[in-house]
Amino acid sequence: MQPVLAKGKITSDHLATFKEIAGASYVLADEESLHHYGHDETEHLVYLPEVVIKPRTAEEISAIMKICNADGIPVTPRGGGTGLSGGALPHLGGVLLSMERFNSILSIDERNLQVITEPGVITEVLQDSVKERGLFYPPDPSSRGSCFIGGNIAENSGGPKAVKYGVVKDYVLNLEVVLPTGEIIWTGANVLKNSTGYNLTQLLVGSEGTLGIVTKIVLKLIPLPKYDLLMLVPFASLEKASEAVSAIFRGGFTPSALELVEIDALQIVSKMVDSHAVPVTDDIAAHLIVEVDGNNLDVLMNDMEAIATLLQDYEAGEVFFADDAQQKAELWKLRRRVAEAVKSSGYTIEEDTVVPRAELPKLIRGVKELGRQHNFHAVCYGHAGDGNLHIRIKKEGTANSMDNAEMNNSLRALFELVYSLGGTISGEHGIGLIQKSYMDIVFADANLRLMREIKQVFDPNNILNAGKIFDLR
Amino acid sequence: MQPVLAKGKITSDHLATFKEIAGASYVLADEESLHHYGHDETEHLVYLPEVVIKPRTAEEISAIMKICNADGIPVTPRGGGTGLSGGALPHLGGVLLSMERFNSILSIDERNLQVITEPGVITEVLQDSVKERGLFYPPDPSSRGSCFIGGNIAENSGGPKAVKYGVVKDYVLNLEVVLPTGEIIWTGANVLKNSTGYNLTQLLVGSEGTLGIVTKIVLKLIPLPKYDLLMLVPFASLEKASEAVSAIFRGGFTPSALELVEIDALQIVSKMVDSHAVPVTDDIAAHLIVEVDGNNLDVLMNDMEAIATLLQDYEAGEVFFADDAQQKAELWKLRRRVAEAVKSSGYTIEEDTVVPRAELPKLIRGVKELGRQHNFHAVCYGHAGDGNLHIRIKKEGTANSMDNAEMNNSLRALFELVYSLGGTISGEHGIGLIQKSYMDIVFADANLRLMREIKQVFDPNNILNAGKIFDLR
Repeated sequence: MQPVLAKGKITSDHLATFKEIAGASYVLADEESLHHYGHDETEHLVYLPEVVIKPRTAEEISAIMKICNADGIPVTPRGGGTGLSGGALPHLGGVLLSMERFNSILSIDERNLQVITEPGVITEVLQDSVKERGLFYPPDPSSRGSCFIGGNIAENSGGPKAVKYGVVKDYVLNLEVVLPTGEIIWTGANVLKNSTGYNLTQLLVGSEGTLGIVTKIVLKLIPLPKYDLLMLVPFASLEKASEAVSAIFRGGFTPSALELVEIDALQIVSKMVDSHAVPVTDDIAAHLIVEVDGNNLDVLMNDMEAIATLLQDYEAGEVFFADDAQQKAELWKLRRRVAEAVKSSGYTIEEDTVVPRAELPKLIRGVKELGRQHNFHAVCYGHAGDGNLHIRIKKEGTANSMDNAEMNNSLRALFELVYSLGGTISGEHGIGLIQKSYMDIVFADANLRLMREIKQVFDPNNILNAGKIFDLR
Repeated sequence: MQPVLAKGKITSDHLATFKEIAGASYVLADEESLHHYGHDETEHLVYLPEVVIKPRTAEEISAIMKICNADGIPVTPRGGGTGLSGGALPHLGGVLLSMERFNSILSIDERNLQVITEPGVITEVLQDSVKERGLFYPPDPSSRGSCFIGGNIAENSGGPKAVKYGVVKDYVLNLEVVLPTGEIIWTGANVLKNSTGYNLTQLLVGSEGTLGIVTKIVLKLIPLPKYDLLMLVPFASLEKASEAVSAIFRGGFTPSALELVEIDALQIVSKMVDSHAVPVTDDIAAHLIVEVDGNNLDVLMNDMEAIATLLQDYEAGEVFFADDAQQKAELWKLRRRVAEAVKSSGYTIEEDTVVPRAELPKLIRGVKELGRQHNFHAVCYGHAGDGNLHIRIKKEGTANSMDNAEMNNSLRALFELVYSLGGTISGEHGIGLIQKSYMDIVFADANLRLMREIKQVFDPNNILNAGKIFDLR
């Protein structure tokens, strides 16, 4: 059977039924709402849905999905709207399903170090809630103050702590999911080890809302480390900074964060937030931000000193230790707001490349060379410890990557470079709408066929976020 | 389309073609070979294949799969033959595909802390090889001296270190896989973070050789910790020992191993290996084995003392610290050989239950109560820190779980208890042949439908290890 995109239109009967299911005040079709939910943080892209529904229970979603499945109405689930790959953009119209009312943390299980939460909880709220009990949920995307934990699951988010603690997938034990056909299932069990059937939990994580709508989440927690130390290290050369990254791990250290920020990005963000916390001078090309954490302060001090010494071999400048909580917060605020700052400065196109960590210098050299060849300006920053480099691109007259053939060629060249280094297109942002045309670079036809057919297994009528990750055929 | 089990028979033409592909000396149909490859470590079960093939390359496997796929011949892949759930048993006859010649470690990448290996490498050989470079691959099933890394991937194995370091799935970055239809694909990329399409890598891990045949494996490595300390703690009560387990984590400690062994098991194994290393006296019901590791010996000593003190609240007896490498090795040898010892002592049926760690006391109470009700004797041991309890069962006249209706009822009652505690059927051994009839206890129809249809996507003609994990319908 050849899949086709759902093209059902929403009638007034549908609207009446949706209002019965979710309550009239949670079914919105006014222009302001449609516009608000028509964009996320992806470039400047806007697609209007026909209706916005804000359900409160899995049963309501199940009822809505059954109708949409029967009538072929496209459904796009949405978390906090902070996505950078267009996963939440309702590009086919239809129903925009906002998960914002799923905003309760259901239980924090201190006996088993687990939390059960709804997907509409803001990531930082979840982190702070478990922190109060001495527990730690490490994955923390830059948008953690506004993104939803459900969106993090959809994209398999990472953030700075991933280098030591792993990404979202490493913390998800079990998911309650409404399937596109309306069934409600649990994907696994609330256990730390599981060899019971195919790993549906891990298949759902990172599936960008195309296989099911997550309504409850069971996460593993770990004990909160007592201390952390932070330092900022300037480098006269971007390449030297990137070479230093893998040297730290080869030295036997595993920092709890290891970020790289190119000086252009720091200049822009420092100006935006009016901060002078970080030196921005002519002789600096990039900074590394290095954090270590643990339960023994002496050990951490020794580690920091050893790392600082090791970095001298890479022509590091004078190291700046953040002395207190305020200095640390200031540094992290700068780092977290880089993407927003450079975007508002015209770097609208963000790529989320990832390579084996020791290949970072080659990637950075390649990016700069491509910029010269293809006439764009790129600024680099990101989770260097994981080999996950965000590349923000500015090109005259190009606000969105999707409507410019020349930009398209440039990105294709970039991803071919990434692939040649053993890397891939996205480390933590997902493929969504804007990267899907590059999937052939990193996957064989057989891979894409498997993915398309898995999509069909979950969503036989292609109603749920269809046309994301890959085009249907 | 209704799936059917492959029932093709192997003809002399097939044999001739297989010999052309793999070489005549690697295609075996003599009785001794068929018998040798007709059983693994699962109870006393034996199923003879029609032919044993030992290919050397992915291309050879691809050629074999294309023939079997066209002619509907069942294929069962086999690693080291140490499985405990019957995953490698050729229960439908056909081709037994032994991966023993895929025995090369292809490269140890010290720059990126990765290893690329073939699946037929013995787990301990892999661990020792990376250890020589100061690197660490933590998952270490008890059978690590003879199991294959490929089999570990098929079952998503764990072992004692999982409590701190995670299981196999947490180390697999990328897999080369021959699909049942003969295509050869890579599932992902050699990177630490990946949000690029559905996670086929994680879908393959733990799929028990039913979705594809793994031919190359890229694993993440971590720096090898410099020190480890080990202690043995006796308890007068099995329940108190199990209560103590979650208290250790609540105290903020994450041991690198936390094993529970009931005294009956220790008695049997101590006798088998003629060891007096562990006290076995009337006032002891169980032992905990506690290991911590890290780079600072003082910190570890302090942690061990704090844990030992904490355990006194649970009526622990006199703690025995393993003083040197020899004592540690002796203790671990005893622990690793428990399964073999109790099996040879008549406990042929092994269950691999897993529950949230703080529910262990309830599980253990329940197991003993079920034994009284259902007239079996159970001995418990395993990875208590993960809530992963192995339960070995002895019942007069019952050597295999599959041929006894009464045993079946007992196991059903056990798994219902496990499920009621938030747990599931298998933590690290897989479902294979012997647990598949209990899958309905922990999964809804919709889950099983999804799994069956995913199997169909990968293996449309049901030739690859079909009838494992779930019955086809």
